[in-house]
Amino acid sequence: MGKLGKQSWKFENQPRLLASAAVGGPKEGQGPLRNDFDVIHDDSYVGQKNWEKAEEQLLQESIQLAVKKGGIQQSQVDLILAGDLINQITISSFSARTIGTPYLGIFGACSTSMEGLALAAQLVDSGFADYAVAATSSHNSTAERQFRYPTEYGGQKPSSAHCTVTGAGAALVGKGLQGPLITYATIGKVVDMGIKNPWEMGPAMAPAAVDTIVAHFQDTGRTPDDYDLIVTGDLARVGHPIAQELLETQGYRMKDKFSDCGILIFDPDQSEVFSGGSGCACCAAVTYGHLMKRMSKGELNRILVIATGALLSPLSVQQGETIPCIAHAVAIEAGGVDK
Amino acid sequence: MGKLGKQSWKFENQPRLLASAAVGGPKEGQGPLRNDFDVIHDDSYVGQKNWEKAEEQLLQESIQLAVKKGGIQQSQVDLILAGDLINQITISSFSARTIGTPYLGIFGACSTSMEGLALAAQLVDSGFADYAVAATSSHNSTAERQFRYPTEYGGQKPSSAHCTVTGAGAALVGKGLQGPLITYATIGKVVDMGIKNPWEMGPAMAPAAVDTIVAHFQDTGRTPDDYDLIVTGDLARVGHPIAQELLETQGYRMKDKFSDCGILIFDPDQSEVFSGGSGCACCAAVTYGHLMKRMSKGELNRILVIATGALLSPLSVQQGETIPCIAHAVAIEAGGVDK
Repeated sequence: MGKLGKQSWKFENQPRLLASAAVGGPKEGQGPLRNDFDVIHDDSYVGQKNWEKAEEQLLQESIQLAVKKGGIQQSQVDLILAGDLINQITISSFSARTIGTPYLGIFGACSTSMEGLALAAQLVDSGFADYAVAATSSHNSTAERQFRYPTEYGGQKPSSAHCTVTGAGAALVGKGLQGPLITYATIGKVVDMGIKNPWEMGPAMAPAAVDTIVAHFQDTGRTPDDYDLIVTGDLARVGHPIAQELLETQGYRMKDKFSDCGILIFDPDQSEVFSGGSGCACCAAVTYGHLMKRMSKGELNRILVIATGALLSPLSVQQGETIPCIAHAVAIEAGGVDK
Repeated sequence: MGKLGKQSWKFENQPRLLASAAVGGPKEGQGPLRNDFDVIHDDSYVGQKNWEKAEEQLLQESIQLAVKKGGIQQSQVDLILAGDLINQITISSFSARTIGTPYLGIFGACSTSMEGLALAAQLVDSGFADYAVAATSSHNSTAERQFRYPTEYGGQKPSSAHCTVTGAGAALVGKGLQGPLITYATIGKVVDMGIKNPWEMGPAMAPAAVDTIVAHFQDTGRTPDDYDLIVTGDLARVGHPIAQELLETQGYRMKDKFSDCGILIFDPDQSEVFSGGSGCACCAAVTYGHLMKRMSKGELNRILVIATGALLSPLSVQQGETIPCIAHAVAIEAGGVDK
């Protein structure tokens, strides 16, 4: 029961993604998924005095919206699983302070969204939580100044760079009569192919995504044909074709059902989106906004979301380390109580 | 099943702390618990070229030792739950890369040890893992340069300061015939009493410890009399008496069974230990080394460990934020299969 194969979990007690919320910033509001966000903020400060406080606002808003949409009170939530890119995940911890719910901090860089969703589903499935929230956020300006250069410097970037998404996504997981079922999760291993260039995140993360996708198929006995959509977190336009090629080489015909949240969230014609989106909020907001809307409309019935994370730090790059990466996958399926 | 009261988990399927390991650095080797570590390194670089690589070595060594002492192969471990104080928890992620086991990154500052142990026990209890490792580390020199001043600067500290422990601790959790049972966990809320001074970590964390201890008693129906020892993570000599007083005020007579890992790990006469130890490794190494030895000798039968964490960052302090804190508790009990 529970454990399946080497790296996967099977949820047999019908934990559901009861409700979710996606919040975005200005650039996300100009992108192709603008109508799939619950809230778009035109002000990147979100009315706050600094960007970290702004990101906190985005995260809190997404959590509170998901809980409200789920029709329950915040006090009914047993715990929040949250993490973000900012040192010591202060955005998540400070948000948990404001909200007051028991809290477990998690970190998997941009894989945090599915790490949280997998753990939330696991806790509900096994009866350790009635309601759990998985949430994560990122903010272009908090990430830029922490990981790269002060934005005022106006540093140039190569076209392989990613654009960190400003936003947040939250999912309320519990048992109930509606909302898609969370059926499987596959926990990733750290994969490092020796890439040292932090502008090459997509190629660095692609092998980790492939490793987890293959483990998922092996553990569950599923194939690409079992899914309507298989979507990676933020490999973007440079990394995603590499993942596709690696999967095809291993015999998995992904066809046109293989997509990427980093590609979906921005239009290539938008200014300074480079190869596509990244940041914890990229996979979270696309999944909890856009993809959940498509599932509720019946356009998608069964999806596999593989959130990818680059586990580097500015210090590890300075110390000449390569970039270790990880990916965690969660399967989400439409399913009424009578299915 | 599983969930108990508002914030606690009850483990009914006998997950056990099958084996554990504690690794320490030079100052820990001069302290009163020197004989309770599996390994003491006299070189704070542990033969590595920088302190971050040294801390990685400590963490890896603790994980590998715990698994070896448990009599299983690393390949039998389903997943590692680990976190540390260093930005983007690179120590843990890089260690997971080396070891190759599926990995979930967690972060609760110095509460990380019991966050990991609670989740590991929960995964084993519910059948989602056969073997899970919970591990964490800290290093005085990696913490000093990240959170405080370059060590070369020789900055003065007040006597309320803590001394970050150099070391690591790991626990192998699974089902088996020996090793103490993990029976309960209580997940903390973020508590912030408005303290802004990062040299006052003990007083900042004490209310969070009390909040979780009281929740544990309320959820489980237990009292201080049910435990041989109730030990906080690293409130140290300034914070621990505050926690004791707050608990007594709420009617909990802690008597002489209330202790603190930050007090236990160093002798007050050691140079520059200030009010006592802190860092993720403080609670982990004392619990997985010293306390497990005392349990195996029969000196302690039932203990409650409350790891405390200050969820600040250098940036949050610079931005004038107060210090949010959290504590997670795990109950560990001697118990043979025939009990």
